[in-house]
Amino acid sequence: MGNEKQFVQEITPKSQDFSEWYVDVVRKAELADYTTIKGCMVIKPYGYALWENIRDALDKRIKATGHQNAYFPLFVPESLLKKEAAHVEGFAPEVAWVTHGGNDPLEERLAIRPTSEAIICSIYAKWVQSYRDLPILINQWANVVRWEKVTRLFLRTTEFLWQEGHTCHRTMEEAQEETLKMLRVYQEFAETELAMPVIPGQKTENEKFPGALYTYTIEAMMGDGKALQAGTSHNLGQHFSKMFDIMFEDEDQVRKYVWQTSWGVSTRLVGGVIMTHGDEHGLILPPRIAPTQVVIIPIFQAATKESVVQKARELSEQLSKICRVHLDARDQYTPGWKFNEYELKGVPVRLEIGPKDIQKNQCVLVRRDTREKTFCPLTEIETRLPALLSQIQKDMLERARQFRDENTRETTSYEEFKRIIEEKRGFIFAPWCGNGECELKIKEDTKATIRCLPLTDDNRVIEAREGVCVRCGAPARFNVYFARAY
Amino acid sequence: MGNEKQFVQEITPKSQDFSEWYVDVVRKAELADYTTIKGCMVIKPYGYALWENIRDALDKRIKATGHQNAYFPLFVPESLLKKEAAHVEGFAPEVAWVTHGGNDPLEERLAIRPTSEAIICSIYAKWVQSYRDLPILINQWANVVRWEKVTRLFLRTTEFLWQEGHTCHRTMEEAQEETLKMLRVYQEFAETELAMPVIPGQKTENEKFPGALYTYTIEAMMGDGKALQAGTSHNLGQHFSKMFDIMFEDEDQVRKYVWQTSWGVSTRLVGGVIMTHGDEHGLILPPRIAPTQVVIIPIFQAATKESVVQKARELSEQLSKICRVHLDARDQYTPGWKFNEYELKGVPVRLEIGPKDIQKNQCVLVRRDTREKTFCPLTEIETRLPALLSQIQKDMLERARQFRDENTRETTSYEEFKRIIEEKRGFIFAPWCGNGECELKIKEDTKATIRCLPLTDDNRVIEAREGVCVRCGAPARFNVYFARAY
Repeated sequence: MGNEKQFVQEITPKSQDFSEWYVDVVRKAELADYTTIKGCMVIKPYGYALWENIRDALDKRIKATGHQNAYFPLFVPESLLKKEAAHVEGFAPEVAWVTHGGNDPLEERLAIRPTSEAIICSIYAKWVQSYRDLPILINQWANVVRWEKVTRLFLRTTEFLWQEGHTCHRTMEEAQEETLKMLRVYQEFAETELAMPVIPGQKTENEKFPGALYTYTIEAMMGDGKALQAGTSHNLGQHFSKMFDIMFEDEDQVRKYVWQTSWGVSTRLVGGVIMTHGDEHGLILPPRIAPTQVVIIPIFQAATKESVVQKARELSEQLSKICRVHLDARDQYTPGWKFNEYELKGVPVRLEIGPKDIQKNQCVLVRRDTREKTFCPLTEIETRLPALLSQIQKDMLERARQFRDENTRETTSYEEFKRIIEEKRGFIFAPWCGNGECELKIKEDTKATIRCLPLTDDNRVIEAREGVCVRCGAPARFNVYFARAY
Repeated sequence: MGNEKQFVQEITPKSQDFSEWYVDVVRKAELADYTTIKGCMVIKPYGYALWENIRDALDKRIKATGHQNAYFPLFVPESLLKKEAAHVEGFAPEVAWVTHGGNDPLEERLAIRPTSEAIICSIYAKWVQSYRDLPILINQWANVVRWEKVTRLFLRTTEFLWQEGHTCHRTMEEAQEETLKMLRVYQEFAETELAMPVIPGQKTENEKFPGALYTYTIEAMMGDGKALQAGTSHNLGQHFSKMFDIMFEDEDQVRKYVWQTSWGVSTRLVGGVIMTHGDEHGLILPPRIAPTQVVIIPIFQAATKESVVQKARELSEQLSKICRVHLDARDQYTPGWKFNEYELKGVPVRLEIGPKDIQKNQCVLVRRDTREKTFCPLTEIETRLPALLSQIQKDMLERARQFRDENTRETTSYEEFKRIIEEKRGFIFAPWCGNGECELKIKEDTKATIRCLPLTDDNRVIEAREGVCVRCGAPARFNVYFARAY
């Protein structure tokens, strides 16, 4: 137990300093670390395995909805980036510029893609000729670079990994349908795979993507009550097609500009998973994306080592057919040390087996999320274990949803609004006049932004029928979510 | 047939201009295309699906041999790149340099990784402390950039996708074992998955990787007789660990430098697959990596359309459980047009089904590689089709091996050597004195380079027991493969 305490003390308590806790967990669980390059991280094998599971789960959904993957250049010539005015204004301050190739200066500077609308649109302009070429439904998994001033592992790094969908459509209606379809794909994916409840909604004009007509978002609440924008889906309208000349001849033989969308999620989701589920003991990973779902820890002494490890090995072999299992039979570490290690790493289930268990033909299962311990007859392990993993996944979503709901407050008083933001954090659901200046004032006063105008199940924003704006007292137009955000 | 001819004529005949044929196939089969950015390509959905299959097949093998994936920064600070002298000399002329982040000039220029030894070694120096931290067995899937003067789709592009393994070991022996293990993984992978026979061998001093102690390679022969270096595995010795100070305390408590390896294959393999197997009609893809393994083409007229398409749909549904199948039931294209399209795209098997076939409860199977046609009872399709795909895979490897062997010649006369290289291409197996200057002379005279010193099954290079160097007449030290190469 002395050992355990010592181990756990290495993590800053979550309740004491959430931000330090986060960095401690990311580093000590060996997910990622800083490098000497400003704002760039190295994603370590355990963190990358987690990302691979997240990526593969989403990739399946992207393909199942009719999209294909492709790969576009890393570089965006400056002239292309400058074509769409709002877009360049939004991204130019954070672009890394390549000016030399080998020993020669380039004729034109190349941006390292901060996002790929500009380069992809310039290519789509050649691909699209006729309405028969539409829709174009393409996704890219890639690295992007944004020269950030303040960075944080996974959440905001100079270079990050992501997917970006880029689609072209014949009509505004189709583009809008695609935008919302992918928003809902993100929502279902986040809730099913990451056990992360999210609020789907529309961004305000101030918060939308540079160059978009409408931006939609899924917003999650982190363990400190702050919001995380976990994914966005943009209806780009014809803003880019007009600047990049992406035209098609329609059935009526009229040449028209295409309607476009783009949508993306990134390695920031890894940060979201950590901050949604982690506790004082470290990570808690949802079973569906956990690199290791079950860790087997044989409990032995010198005399029993051989038989216990042998049994553990058989179990590991048997279970590897139904889940991602890891056997830790190292004898230079005590079981207690291992318990802490895999708790820190968030492995959903620990399976302990010792000489007495073997006699009784049973093992011990310990849930990471609740730390609840149960005995399981070995004859039932193949049905009990998958059921337990499902239950953990379900409970984690439910627990996160409950936490979010408990930390979402409604108010119509600006004084109370300010007090809640300062003292309690969490989301505030409040009426707003719809005025962007009023929104910026609230941000100035409280550092809280409008996270989204939430959507109904049939994708409409909710107009306020009555009441007044929480800040300015003008008639309310919408009921919206406010929060401080990552 | 008029239609077919017209279609096929769009591809430059392979026998007339291999290089033009290659570009035509890549572009018309919609694998990739050039962009406005010098030397950068866009990998289109069909090409990317092919790359995904190649990547996944290799990734499995990399993991099965105990490696884990991770992700390191895109940027390499200039000072790091310069640490290993041979390394910087080899790569500096082709580095893209980032000089500005946002509006501010950087204090130190950042190279976009041309390969990641320098950045990864600087990070490993922190990770490795004790012999218990070894071996480090990590792989990265990433994009890299080399500012190439002459580029060619897939084979040599400014930006390309690849994997790079980077490992650290306690002893020279372990590093050497790893280097050769991965060389053999590449060989098995290329032969099994890509149906591409390769010669594993060691590179000469002139041809080795900048900074390596030894470089090993797998060399394949393309359809024009030129060689393609399809993958390399390097024993880096202690060249990098000494420069980057990667040290560990060994069991004997002495601090020592680690021994390292690195190894990689890239999207150039896609080019290799095309040039190994393609014919006058376009691509021929090995079934194991083909995005579509079987294309179903219903043959119908207006009156029979409904029933034939219905049957084709059932078949497609049924076969989708055992292979990657695509049904093309579009009625704006004729069957003949479709036959050409999927031949161009290299789909291994075409399944035709028409009203008469349905009556007889059969279908027609056409192999892409031999264009051989057979009837298959529908009751046997689930066993015949997988068997046919395996047979095609096997025959493709065998055919490529035969082509390579037929185009590999031995000679001891330099005059004949020059004539063969000029008139017949292919590989020449010839004795060499072991002198690097002699090797360069041969290159100057003939544009042929030493592709490798081939390895025996137990990984030894073959020393020549007798004879003299094909060029200089000095006693021969090795029998080696010469060829012009991509």
